[in-house]
Amino acid sequence: MLIDIGSIGGFIMVRVVIVGGGAAGASAAARAKRFDPSADVVLVEASDMITHAPCAIPYAIAGIVKGRDDMAMYTAEEFEKERGVKVYINTKVIDVDVDKRVVYIDRNGSIDRISWDRLVIATGAIPSIPRIPGIDLKGVVSLRHPAYVEDIKRDLENANSVAIVGGSYLGIEMAEALLSLGKKVILIEKENQLLPLTLDSDMGEVVARDVVSKGVELHLNESLMEIGGKDRVRYIATNRDSYNVDAVILATGVKPNIEIALKAGIKLGVTGAIYVNEYMETNIEDIYAAGDVAEKFHRILKKNTWIPLATYANKEGQVAGANTIRKRSIRFPGVIGTVVTRFFNMYIAKTGLNTKEAVENGIKVDGRVIKARTKAHYFPGAVDVYVKLVIEQATDKIIGAQIVGWNHSVAGYIDVVAAAITNNMTIEDLFFLDIGYTPSTSPVWHPLIISARVLSKGRF
Amino acid sequence: MLIDIGSIGGFIMVRVVIVGGGAAGASAAARAKRFDPSADVVLVEASDMITHAPCAIPYAIAGIVKGRDDMAMYTAEEFEKERGVKVYINTKVIDVDVDKRVVYIDRNGSIDRISWDRLVIATGAIPSIPRIPGIDLKGVVSLRHPAYVEDIKRDLENANSVAIVGGSYLGIEMAEALLSLGKKVILIEKENQLLPLTLDSDMGEVVARDVVSKGVELHLNESLMEIGGKDRVRYIATNRDSYNVDAVILATGVKPNIEIALKAGIKLGVTGAIYVNEYMETNIEDIYAAGDVAEKFHRILKKNTWIPLATYANKEGQVAGANTIRKRSIRFPGVIGTVVTRFFNMYIAKTGLNTKEAVENGIKVDGRVIKARTKAHYFPGAVDVYVKLVIEQATDKIIGAQIVGWNHSVAGYIDVVAAAITNNMTIEDLFFLDIGYTPSTSPVWHPLIISARVLSKGRF
Repeated sequence: MLIDIGSIGGFIMVRVVIVGGGAAGASAAARAKRFDPSADVVLVEASDMITHAPCAIPYAIAGIVKGRDDMAMYTAEEFEKERGVKVYINTKVIDVDVDKRVVYIDRNGSIDRISWDRLVIATGAIPSIPRIPGIDLKGVVSLRHPAYVEDIKRDLENANSVAIVGGSYLGIEMAEALLSLGKKVILIEKENQLLPLTLDSDMGEVVARDVVSKGVELHLNESLMEIGGKDRVRYIATNRDSYNVDAVILATGVKPNIEIALKAGIKLGVTGAIYVNEYMETNIEDIYAAGDVAEKFHRILKKNTWIPLATYANKEGQVAGANTIRKRSIRFPGVIGTVVTRFFNMYIAKTGLNTKEAVENGIKVDGRVIKARTKAHYFPGAVDVYVKLVIEQATDKIIGAQIVGWNHSVAGYIDVVAAAITNNMTIEDLFFLDIGYTPSTSPVWHPLIISARVLSKGRF
Repeated sequence: MLIDIGSIGGFIMVRVVIVGGGAAGASAAARAKRFDPSADVVLVEASDMITHAPCAIPYAIAGIVKGRDDMAMYTAEEFEKERGVKVYINTKVIDVDVDKRVVYIDRNGSIDRISWDRLVIATGAIPSIPRIPGIDLKGVVSLRHPAYVEDIKRDLENANSVAIVGGSYLGIEMAEALLSLGKKVILIEKENQLLPLTLDSDMGEVVARDVVSKGVELHLNESLMEIGGKDRVRYIATNRDSYNVDAVILATGVKPNIEIALKAGIKLGVTGAIYVNEYMETNIEDIYAAGDVAEKFHRILKKNTWIPLATYANKEGQVAGANTIRKRSIRFPGVIGTVVTRFFNMYIAKTGLNTKEAVENGIKVDGRVIKARTKAHYFPGAVDVYVKLVIEQATDKIIGAQIVGWNHSVAGYIDVVAAAITNNMTIEDLFFLDIGYTPSTSPVWHPLIISARVLSKGRF
């Protein structure tokens, strides 16, 4: 069957096809339709969910997020009705013909094609699975998509002892989930610290202390070598030891899902994700990419990087969708890598560059960890917060921050630094920023102000 | 007795005298001593407390802040010991001779003088007391200084029904305190909304709904005309009605405490506070002013204003203190009016200009109230937050925000907008700001991002 309604009579209706119904794809679809209500906008999604939120997976496993439907903003039906976008779920795009401007789709084994005037690739990211013995055993779980949460919950139901491989955000969030379900948690991280891609080791240490104190059995400097068992997982072996476990969570990172991009001959960047410019254009005319499958311009490093985050996906989708209709009407200015996570009541955030990243990029930096409190000294209920600002030595410009604290104020703090970095603020600028104060929300010398002052070496 | 140790032998020791031991004065003293450990730094305070925190008063009355000492960072002894500053408490500066460079002080009736090389006026603010009948009755309380909190508590002890006059921050904070003590609270505000100097009326309405729902008897558009009673307060009369009360809290605003400045012949600005430049210099050589007694340069309006806040006092004190030693070494760049308060679990914040202030200053603005949630839609525990961004029509530049919400995230939000305003960010810049996200701290579309988008009229 040929699904093609490209032109009706003399009126040329533009068709925008979006591959992938996650944050980026759905945002692109909604935006395109909003900018041209006469456009024929088609969203194609391989699973049965659209507008799904992968960030919800650990909380769904923990039971904090109750239903499967809660992990999506819209059902396909709702999205069609409210946004006027044609949605195909359970439909996999299997090929793209760039010359003929068609995509080939597989719906329950029946192959069809859809023509397009503009194409948006929003196929997201997929877990990186280590190729080691036992990886296919029952009880080895990767966290790919909200659609599979129920399967994962079943898989974990009778597991008492679970290994989490990878001390990334996902690893830490899953550790919270599993502890809250009463399971024993063994966390394996191959680097010498938690969150090695995010935090400097001094801040990683702060996080590790809390993670261990809440009951995680933490093994740093250990690499997973093998998973063993018969019908299902019985143990894991690392380069150092082996541990009896009933299940294994792979939090070993993700990679861009570039299968379709490769088939279309779309250029990849050095990061392995799709190369895009500020309009979210790929190298092929009228093909856009957005979300986790695409590179992101880094506003500090002035080069493309790959940092897959939900907020970027939403905004990039919106930019791509807008530009499919009004070519080059809006630009995505890039990212600085602001991330937030939590482990129970500990909130962890980072923006800009950490010391390691700065050094790798040839930037000489200063940075110092301070410990402060979240309220006025006389106000009850204050908690600790650790702040590490990273500044460029030559200019005093703030280029990064890492913040760990025991309430969600951390999220606000990191956003202030994100604004500071984006606007090239120095520590003196931050010191004199008119930050608000009331005794219940901050000390009169805000932790960020103290951080700026400490780095001034007595100048202010 | 002449307290004068101006020069010892051939070595000229500079003497810095600071009038007022609150936030500004103590910061100035500490900074001066730090920049020149050989300097003779003298801090003179009229009460028996230094480094006191007036912001603590409502919480001390409520019993949240336990002891009197908790309302100060240092005792005089500690400050002398740790900072090397000579402190005179219970000592009132009664006159200044600018030509002879001395201040005259009154210590328990004994008059002395202290010479100075640099003088810092940090005499703070005092309550504006309306001149109406009955104002001197027992049970009529103004909130001047932490030193008097115990007296106020005694005064309120047997009061069942209390009128608060003024729907300012202090009025609202005192309403929380009194309700939490089980008292009936009647709040009288002469304008047609709460927080009239801070919020636009639409946001004032949001606050008023909550204040009323928590039990305050709110009377807008009513002016206090008279306080009645015999030994102590029995009733108050407004232009509309009269109310039986056992006590009256005056939250009728504050004014700069310029008594000493006037005696010294120091120039005042149009606001009635001491005119200072960016170095915190007054018009008289070697005399500085800092804190609530001084004007503040407004970074948006590009003119001096008077906004007495603790954070400004601390920073201005530090700048003044530094410049007494290293002349014009550091500048105070000014303020934008960021304020935060709370009423129980409702947090209220403002930065920059509200619509009324913008209009008064001839700026054409757009602004719109949005209502959002503080967490991802699927995450439990989210609360409402109302955000009103105010932007300059001609440029889309953000010039103000008002935020009301039911957890302390509000404080972080307002600080992000403060950074945005300070850096001339437009709503498009804010929309694309790399704000952090995790489901427990914000929706994937952060309330600030939504606010920016709403004002873009469909552009992004």
